[in-house]
Amino acid sequence: MKIKVLKDVLEANNYIARKIREELAKRQAMMINIIGSPGAGKTSFIIKTIEVLDVKAVVIEGDVTSDIDSRKVASFGIPVVQVNTGGGCHLNANMIDLALKKIPVENAVIFVENVGNLICPASYDIGEDFKLAICSVPEGHDKPFKYPAIFEKAGAIVLNKVDLIKHVDFDRDTFYEGVKTLNPKVSVFEVSSINGDGIEEWGQWLKSQFMEKINR
Amino acid sequence: MKIKVLKDVLEANNYIARKIREELAKRQAMMINIIGSPGAGKTSFIIKTIEVLDVKAVVIEGDVTSDIDSRKVASFGIPVVQVNTGGGCHLNANMIDLALKKIPVENAVIFVENVGNLICPASYDIGEDFKLAICSVPEGHDKPFKYPAIFEKAGAIVLNKVDLIKHVDFDRDTFYEGVKTLNPKVSVFEVSSINGDGIEEWGQWLKSQFMEKINR
Repeated sequence: MKIKVLKDVLEANNYIARKIREELAKRQAMMINIIGSPGAGKTSFIIKTIEVLDVKAVVIEGDVTSDIDSRKVASFGIPVVQVNTGGGCHLNANMIDLALKKIPVENAVIFVENVGNLICPASYDIGEDFKLAICSVPEGHDKPFKYPAIFEKAGAIVLNKVDLIKHVDFDRDTFYEGVKTLNPKVSVFEVSSINGDGIEEWGQWLKSQFMEKINR
Repeated sequence: MKIKVLKDVLEANNYIARKIREELAKRQAMMINIIGSPGAGKTSFIIKTIEVLDVKAVVIEGDVTSDIDSRKVASFGIPVVQVNTGGGCHLNANMIDLALKKIPVENAVIFVENVGNLICPASYDIGEDFKLAICSVPEGHDKPFKYPAIFEKAGAIVLNKVDLIKHVDFDRDTFYEGVKTLNPKVSVFEVSSINGDGIEEWGQWLKSQFMEKINR
């Protein structure tokens, strides 16, 4: 008998993440791991996306504590599971594995709102199809330079709250310089969850990614 | 001979933090541990505060990577030390211990800008006199409910970017309800580092805390 020894926490996490990825492929589902600072506007962005996305969608809400966001999502009639980390600063694959048992995900896009944190969640594979980095205009144009890991790993980047750009000091050129240095080919979407700008374009891109996956 | 065994990382950290606290008391210095999300406006707030603070001031800049903020601070002629965590999501006492060897802190207020993260830094004592939680209006009024640890532990709370309040959905009553539930006696300062609102009042409070400490 061979005994499998898991070297460390990350290896155990990655093992579960791989199992999730296989399972989601079988169930024709796509999972997005949405990572951004507190207050980047993750929840509103998810709700706005689902409004335009012509595909079944479910949400997994990660938070240190509280169910504020999952109640907000549920109020729009969207199926949602809350995951509280109890102080933990990121979601891990085990939490997602348990959450996926509580919600029907066949043929769905699964939006995972990670804990509000631009650093730690970038290191954990949760079985997602891709990580989405979301930052907002009031946070400033220097975020890619200061938190490079998530911008480097992201499969898509969203710049939220573009409706505020006239009220704050935000230099698009500097922002894009940071993004393109770290992740030259990534798609970037400028959106406003308040007035809906850019949501349609992002939703179409997302749907095309989903259709490509399930028709493979 | 007795051998001191340090039970865990946090105990080792707290041991160094206590030593720092003793040392700073001897040197008549006060240290503030400034904790907020990426983009809360920590650096500009520190610079604006030092402009009105009629006391010697130095800065320790914590960042995952990059020296963007310390160059900004230095451009105002303020003594500053950069600490890069190399991926780490918070400062610890050992990093501060090393940084304090590089900068003269006698009779000074030491502003420590922690890594942009509203979760992990709350758990680490770095030898500070108090933790300052800083959040900004565009992040939304629900931050105390969603990231309670730092709001509970803070010796002062700053609500930054109040100049943007007319452009976003921010309910002061909800914000203060969260703060007062977690930390009933804490002083809260509403400021704008852009137009200077509230900085004078906050600076006077800070100076009074400093004078109280060094005259004890």
